[in-house]
Amino acid sequence: MSKKSADLSTETAGIGRRRFINTAALAGLTVGVAACNDKPAAAPAAAPAAPAPAAPAASHGGANVHLKPGELDTYYGLWSGGHTGDMRVLGLPSGREIHRIPCFVPDALVGWGVTNESKAVMGTKADGHLKYTVADTHHTHASYKDGNYDGRYAWINDKINSRVARIRLDYFVCDKITELPNVQGFHGIFPDKADPVDPAINYTTRVFCGGEFAIPMPNDGKGVNDPTKYHSMFTCVDAETMEVRWQVLIDGNCDLVATSYDGKLAATNQYNTENGIHYEDMMSAERDACLFFNIARIEEAVKAGKFKTVGSSKVPVVDGSHEANKDPKTALVAYVSVPKNPHGVNASPDGKYFICAGKLSPTATTIELAKVLEWFDGKLEKLDDAIVAEVEIGLGPLHTAFDGRGNAYTTLFLDSQVVKWNVEKAIAFHKGDKNAKYVVDRLDVHYQPGHINASQSETKAADGKFLAVGCKFSKDRFLPVGPLHPENEQLIDISGEKMVLLADHPVRGEPHDFIIFKRDIVKPKQVYSLDDFPLAIKDPKESGVTRNGKKVTVKLTSQAPAFSLREFTVKKGDEVTLILTNLDKIEDLTHGFAIPNYNVNFIVNPLETKSVTFTADKPGVFWCYCTHFCHALHLEMRTRMIVEA
Amino acid sequence: MSKKSADLSTETAGIGRRRFINTAALAGLTVGVAACNDKPAAAPAAAPAAPAPAAPAASHGGANVHLKPGELDTYYGLWSGGHTGDMRVLGLPSGREIHRIPCFVPDALVGWGVTNESKAVMGTKADGHLKYTVADTHHTHASYKDGNYDGRYAWINDKINSRVARIRLDYFVCDKITELPNVQGFHGIFPDKADPVDPAINYTTRVFCGGEFAIPMPNDGKGVNDPTKYHSMFTCVDAETMEVRWQVLIDGNCDLVATSYDGKLAATNQYNTENGIHYEDMMSAERDACLFFNIARIEEAVKAGKFKTVGSSKVPVVDGSHEANKDPKTALVAYVSVPKNPHGVNASPDGKYFICAGKLSPTATTIELAKVLEWFDGKLEKLDDAIVAEVEIGLGPLHTAFDGRGNAYTTLFLDSQVVKWNVEKAIAFHKGDKNAKYVVDRLDVHYQPGHINASQSETKAADGKFLAVGCKFSKDRFLPVGPLHPENEQLIDISGEKMVLLADHPVRGEPHDFIIFKRDIVKPKQVYSLDDFPLAIKDPKESGVTRNGKKVTVKLTSQAPAFSLREFTVKKGDEVTLILTNLDKIEDLTHGFAIPNYNVNFIVNPLETKSVTFTADKPGVFWCYCTHFCHALHLEMRTRMIVEA
Repeated sequence: MSKKSADLSTETAGIGRRRFINTAALAGLTVGVAACNDKPAAAPAAAPAAPAPAAPAASHGGANVHLKPGELDTYYGLWSGGHTGDMRVLGLPSGREIHRIPCFVPDALVGWGVTNESKAVMGTKADGHLKYTVADTHHTHASYKDGNYDGRYAWINDKINSRVARIRLDYFVCDKITELPNVQGFHGIFPDKADPVDPAINYTTRVFCGGEFAIPMPNDGKGVNDPTKYHSMFTCVDAETMEVRWQVLIDGNCDLVATSYDGKLAATNQYNTENGIHYEDMMSAERDACLFFNIARIEEAVKAGKFKTVGSSKVPVVDGSHEANKDPKTALVAYVSVPKNPHGVNASPDGKYFICAGKLSPTATTIELAKVLEWFDGKLEKLDDAIVAEVEIGLGPLHTAFDGRGNAYTTLFLDSQVVKWNVEKAIAFHKGDKNAKYVVDRLDVHYQPGHINASQSETKAADGKFLAVGCKFSKDRFLPVGPLHPENEQLIDISGEKMVLLADHPVRGEPHDFIIFKRDIVKPKQVYSLDDFPLAIKDPKESGVTRNGKKVTVKLTSQAPAFSLREFTVKKGDEVTLILTNLDKIEDLTHGFAIPNYNVNFIVNPLETKSVTFTADKPGVFWCYCTHFCHALHLEMRTRMIVEA
Repeated sequence: MSKKSADLSTETAGIGRRRFINTAALAGLTVGVAACNDKPAAAPAAAPAAPAPAAPAASHGGANVHLKPGELDTYYGLWSGGHTGDMRVLGLPSGREIHRIPCFVPDALVGWGVTNESKAVMGTKADGHLKYTVADTHHTHASYKDGNYDGRYAWINDKINSRVARIRLDYFVCDKITELPNVQGFHGIFPDKADPVDPAINYTTRVFCGGEFAIPMPNDGKGVNDPTKYHSMFTCVDAETMEVRWQVLIDGNCDLVATSYDGKLAATNQYNTENGIHYEDMMSAERDACLFFNIARIEEAVKAGKFKTVGSSKVPVVDGSHEANKDPKTALVAYVSVPKNPHGVNASPDGKYFICAGKLSPTATTIELAKVLEWFDGKLEKLDDAIVAEVEIGLGPLHTAFDGRGNAYTTLFLDSQVVKWNVEKAIAFHKGDKNAKYVVDRLDVHYQPGHINASQSETKAADGKFLAVGCKFSKDRFLPVGPLHPENEQLIDISGEKMVLLADHPVRGEPHDFIIFKRDIVKPKQVYSLDDFPLAIKDPKESGVTRNGKKVTVKLTSQAPAFSLREFTVKKGDEVTLILTNLDKIEDLTHGFAIPNYNVNFIVNPLETKSVTFTADKPGVFWCYCTHFCHALHLEMRTRMIVEA
């Protein structure tokens, strides 16, 4: 559609032309990947201009990932569940999946999407059905304090339906979901780490969301072929209320989001600054961009009323287009150029740099935040002078993690490798020291790695112990299970100079990003309080059936191995609301409640209360039974629902 | 309601009174389990008359479960997913979950419950919504040939909605689901292993299903308090057509199902032969039963028209009540007495015995099949003389596995142990040899174990290498993740005299039964054939939009990194059927297809075709994108759906 690439590339820092991958080469790469997939046991894709593929790592050693029975993990991992739509909780280094937290899609185990409480979080249509039952989560990040996680919240995105969900890290449950207006393909997400103005607020209060797809504003079916109508949005959500604070209208397609430790800057790397519709158009420009948002200025502009609104949304929208932000003194957004369809932007734990990987360029671009702030202050003549390094690291670089010792670890999708490189040496090389050997190590992974993260990598407490890599193809690494392969998450020891591959873990498609942190950061509660639930039935004596016309309320409690009501009777056609409180207060003593043929099942954890509402449309006897093993007499734990004809 | 216990206990074999657990003792046990849960690190429940709890096993050794990166497992495990409603596929000995097969509940990753093809398998209501979205799977078993698995099919039950699903083990997908008539709480399931009459049919042609809850026949809301109307059903489903062949009306509540290697007998252990509604009634009798079904006689009776039908179902139902089956010469069913609320019935790999665990009795009952057949032939005076051993093994015995060397391994729920005992020595002890030490070993597990199975245990090829135990409580064994704990599946080396605990694996609640078999038994296909799908679009040139009034068909194909249509246009109000064929034929090259805000996402594996139908009720531009990472330009892989206002 439009073409901004010329604008952007004129700002390019004075680096020599690199071996950018052009359309023709990519056609070759497609075949390269194909060939690689063709032979399960073959080495990673041999692509044009790629280094000769190394033999698979044969060594096995490094840190011990094999816990003895009963031994606890030392790290938590929070993983986006991809298009399963939930969040995964892992223990590391074992790689064991300890929990899945339902967020955007129904979950039959928990009763998520079945109970009234979960439906209220998820959102329903006028007819009472869930508004959405599919999702595509990509990124999960947690709340910060003093530059480290504080164990309060985590957030996760849904790309399909532009939603952001918040997870409480005390109970490990999703408590709020917000749908973003004027956004399609909501992709990157990152909480801020401090307030840009008030130093006392050294913790997360905002969550930033990158919109990937440019759509007509408003998206009402009119002017669908007018390229000037197409834009995407960068959105700020309040971390506490989960309401949308403001949006910035921008050029290009947001990929990931990163935030600075001082709270002043948020960034998103952009591909398709060309605003193309077709993939060859999306990679016609040699450089795209990393956009830096001046949070304080944006919020001043909103406060000053310098915004518009779009469609039926009341959210303030400020203009962050490239054209409107050329004057550094007034700019809300800075477009630093980055080659080519960059993928991933990651903040180094020393707080100094954001690193963008080139994807279609074999380079990583290191941008110094102090210099971006200088540009906003009018003290840096050329914005691209904020690029302090742009060095070749390998083919298809995507995402970068850090060890806290000055090294970066970037996934190379096409090379099927992780490359370890030293940031300061890369800067020295970029400055002209051609003896600076910035590449420290390379390790083959299996295969086509996407996201990568290290223990505590996105905090000031990056500890350089473990690195996890999400490989998009597993091919031959696990027993065959039909056409749908698992992905392969590999764990790597990065405590030494050389990386050591520790373990392969199969995982359902398809997790994207994840974070890894020390286990003492969260303080989970394992039993609810009755007072957490307004409908709680605190005494079994309150159990019973009450009727208001055709509306019937059934109250019951559970205490292993029995429900408080042995039976209850309703009439055909009644609208029944059933409330169940689990009065068992012992850790791990969860009950389930299923009603045969009524499509009802949910669990109640210790001291939890849940409710369901359904129409008693089928007469007969229905044995409601406990679905979650609770006791030697679990099988006998039932109550009889009689629906009178 | 009724009381059959007296009848049954008069048939008791001449064993001395054992320390059956009575109601009072169970009240104590409840506290015992509670106390155990109260202190995460405490030893297993100390219950009345229980042996002093052993210290947790400190040793670590035995077989190596820790595969090197890239090393393949040697066994598959098929696990029921519990109330997640799917089937899990594991690799063993690593314990890694390689796959989950959606069956009874929607799956947002695959698009199960979203695509027209999956909706046809799952079943829909008149309004097009899925009939059921919850399920409770308990047992999974695979098809047999010559006494071993043949890798064709597996089956899994849904207890909530009385459904049985079949899984094709070439593609690892569910292809048929059958809802059983006149059944509530469908619990145990087992395929036969041969035909009872035709020795040439030495493979699975029937699947037997045990109905747990007694309901009024028919269940129409009338006579709900007439105990004589309440019965449960034992059902035979055709393994190929998945249609219901016949049912047997019985007394009591079916728990598990087992089948003999010669095809002549199927069995289900029964609790609540008292037909009680409340749990204290359900355990008033000192002995319940294991029911043996004479398959040939039942099918003769059906052929001879000696059946009735129930309600609107046309399925032939024969009378298997205790009262109607007292004459061995004509009996279709034999009620062998077993103490007390027995749980689990398992066939020994030598083909000779079925073993029922006592649950509320500390015993395991060994029943000799040859003697049951003798009874049917009128050659055994007292049916309970088929009981060749009934020995004490520990508190709360539930399920039993075998090593092929004459030993049985039974879970002790209340003792939190696995007990290894020798079947022939138990028989000798039962016969009077009080020096026969049938208990070989005991191992603490963590905690409250339910199902158990060993590698190849339920086949003639039982190899005695690995034992897996599903522990219902994990308590302190994993990092805390809020109120909902994972279960704990433990792997045990049984290759030696002593059992060795190898590893703990957390698992989402709540898997029940599972099977473990050698990896060469299945031959998965990892790429579909275009001809598998009647709607397949074999050439990208067939792509396009065709209209028939308000019905619009959109045909497109995928080949990384592009869909065959760059855009397509429909009108608001159209009923759109979108058909997508993945023309990528490379293993592991799966694509996804999401339509923002239209609640559509599904995947297409190599050469797979799927379709979705939706109403284009929202005008605007909708970027349909690939949700399953496929290529370096995956992010750019999109097609633009324009819905004209």
